[in-house]
Amino acid sequence: MKTLRVLTGITTSGTPHLGNYVGAIRPTVRASRLAEVESFYFLADYHALIKVGEPARVQRSTLEIAATWLACGLDPEKVTFYRQSDIPEIPELTWLLTCVTGKGVLNRAHAYKASVDKNTAAGDDPDAGVTAGLFMYPVLMAADILMFNAHQVPVGRDQIQHIEMARDMASSFNHLYGEHFTLPEAAIEEHVATLPGLDGRKMSKSYDNTIPLFAPKDQLRKLIMGILTDSRAPGEPKSTEGSAVFQLYQAFATAEETAALARAYADGIAWGEAKQLVADRLEREIAPLREVYDALIQNPAQIEQTLLQGAEKARAIATPFTRRLRHAVGLRPLQSAPVAAAKPKSAKAAAPSFKQYRADDGLFCFKLIDANGELLLESLGFASPKEAAQLITQLQQTGVPALEANLPQLKLLGTMADVQRALAHFNPLVA
Amino acid sequence: MKTLRVLTGITTSGTPHLGNYVGAIRPTVRASRLAEVESFYFLADYHALIKVGEPARVQRSTLEIAATWLACGLDPEKVTFYRQSDIPEIPELTWLLTCVTGKGVLNRAHAYKASVDKNTAAGDDPDAGVTAGLFMYPVLMAADILMFNAHQVPVGRDQIQHIEMARDMASSFNHLYGEHFTLPEAAIEEHVATLPGLDGRKMSKSYDNTIPLFAPKDQLRKLIMGILTDSRAPGEPKSTEGSAVFQLYQAFATAEETAALARAYADGIAWGEAKQLVADRLEREIAPLREVYDALIQNPAQIEQTLLQGAEKARAIATPFTRRLRHAVGLRPLQSAPVAAAKPKSAKAAAPSFKQYRADDGLFCFKLIDANGELLLESLGFASPKEAAQLITQLQQTGVPALEANLPQLKLLGTMADVQRALAHFNPLVA
Repeated sequence: MKTLRVLTGITTSGTPHLGNYVGAIRPTVRASRLAEVESFYFLADYHALIKVGEPARVQRSTLEIAATWLACGLDPEKVTFYRQSDIPEIPELTWLLTCVTGKGVLNRAHAYKASVDKNTAAGDDPDAGVTAGLFMYPVLMAADILMFNAHQVPVGRDQIQHIEMARDMASSFNHLYGEHFTLPEAAIEEHVATLPGLDGRKMSKSYDNTIPLFAPKDQLRKLIMGILTDSRAPGEPKSTEGSAVFQLYQAFATAEETAALARAYADGIAWGEAKQLVADRLEREIAPLREVYDALIQNPAQIEQTLLQGAEKARAIATPFTRRLRHAVGLRPLQSAPVAAAKPKSAKAAAPSFKQYRADDGLFCFKLIDANGELLLESLGFASPKEAAQLITQLQQTGVPALEANLPQLKLLGTMADVQRALAHFNPLVA
Repeated sequence: MKTLRVLTGITTSGTPHLGNYVGAIRPTVRASRLAEVESFYFLADYHALIKVGEPARVQRSTLEIAATWLACGLDPEKVTFYRQSDIPEIPELTWLLTCVTGKGVLNRAHAYKASVDKNTAAGDDPDAGVTAGLFMYPVLMAADILMFNAHQVPVGRDQIQHIEMARDMASSFNHLYGEHFTLPEAAIEEHVATLPGLDGRKMSKSYDNTIPLFAPKDQLRKLIMGILTDSRAPGEPKSTEGSAVFQLYQAFATAEETAALARAYADGIAWGEAKQLVADRLEREIAPLREVYDALIQNPAQIEQTLLQGAEKARAIATPFTRRLRHAVGLRPLQSAPVAAAKPKSAKAAAPSFKQYRADDGLFCFKLIDANGELLLESLGFASPKEAAQLITQLQQTGVPALEANLPQLKLLGTMADVQRALAHFNPLVA
């Protein structure tokens, strides 16, 4: 019974590193095997274009990320694994959502605001260097999510706002055009495992301190050897607290193995030796995956094939759903349905009418209403209905002159032009 | 010889009126017959969604506008006549352009600024009631133009800025990704014929003073009868200056006919009579067109067919061109081309190097450079190259301790972390 739809996007702007593996890929692939979840994973290459202006890097990153997820065990038979740019319905939905999104909402997006704050602090124009892509990013992300009516989107705390925005866009659309979208929820990942990078800070592309997940064995070892440590000599007891080497080990080792390394730290293991242990332990987990990865990366045509099959699966949902959304907003085949022959507004003005009535004070009145039901003219009260009717006839027959002659009896509520036009209806010869 | 490409879009948000006919449809259809021009006309229904939240109106307007252009003589065999939303490449290109457009540029768009000014004057939030659609409208318009590499876009003065924005986006894209787009030019329509509406102001949807082009004969007459005039009685000479009735006649009549009406004005023709003349003259031109229009509108399936054929023609250009653009930005089949195996940045850090050199003062020095060519470390001068080489060896073999012991001889230019990492390259066992 697959009920819960979960959607995850990976921006194709870099090379997967150990931090991605531990924090996202490994847990996510495990979760993808849960029977009760219907999972969507996509390579967010339209998103990559916001930040990456190097075509070869986008292409290479797409290849590497696809190969990585497949090598790490994502099963394209069980999940829907596709490349965003293979779904032309995504940019189309982005436009439909753009039209129901308040610009003010986007002004408040964290990522955009951070850029503005930085510019402002530097005394620059608030939007200096900000592309429309960065500004519109939440709308594209909403299209990604809403296209598949995902229930849950696993995100870090910093991304909650984007999910809220997607909910808002879904609500606005539903409100305007009927219930079409599921409101997605953020599945907040409170305990994302993070790894320290080469310099001890969180491993992150933006710090340039990453260790590529599938670096060749020797390079992986060399990079691990280069991790920053303190300068305690061999024999000196070392602290596991804040030790990047130790944290990296822990992310891969069992509890027993980790405890053993902690003891070795206390016993003054040399940094070089500790790093060798880490390299060995990582190699044990990564080597079999790397083998698959290397084979895949040598065969891009096969990955392409897998992605195209995934796109077909995704479009089996996206294409009919987009057809429905297009119909909802009015982008319809012209022969479809009896089109309510939405009368042109100004044409309606051709059918104004006089109404006679008796006012609260017992006097007899009339009013002139245009075809839209707008009140153009009211008379004051007459003693008899006949008097009222006579003035109506006069107005219908001679129009403006009668109007002008009887102004003391009349209250103009529309413009003179409107009244004149309405009166013309009763006698086309009236000027 | 068709060389010049000209593109025109018509937003599908209303019913064509006499003002559209005289100001745009009639001259444009005439121009479309010029042999040296390759013309593109499209029904801008994605644009309509910015302002129109009524699906039936969008659908109905699309039908009416398509039928109108066809009835007025646009020849879908000679020109490319299509519906914007039949070209999925348009929203895709919109996204590609979004990523190369500075947000600041969009802030300065007239239509957006007008909304902001209005809000500000009213003491509201500057973006109150402004949708992202209104804000992004210039990017969608640029995609419309650039998709077909149109040379010219006929626009009124108020639209020049949008063409300039499209040029800017084309330039940015070309600069980043190579020459793909023609820079379009605004073909400024200095002498657009405008018609007065029912109230004497310019005939415009926004004034609600329009006369539908294909209103049934009787209704057309009634509406003309309702045009605002002054209240001069029959027999009194009338001024042609500022007379909506006269201007309307002039837009349809020959010079002789117009001169004759001017004389009748001077002779005191009654308004009703003058209006009859106008109605007769318009009916003469419109009746045969209306007949075609009515037949077309009764057969929406045929119009749909015409539009789909137009879309096919348009996509014969748009589809391969978009493929080329996708390739340019990096959205490529993975097996295509030898992907420059864009080395992950941090992997490069594995290949730092020492360089020895002789300084200007004759002393022997060395420097440590990381894989990106960044200078991490410089030595002071030594008397012999051997002394320099010895320190290099020491640094390579024992790393940080050697560094610390020899700090007086060294100038650190990178961070300690960078230097430590670089040194680890030479001996993985070095801590």
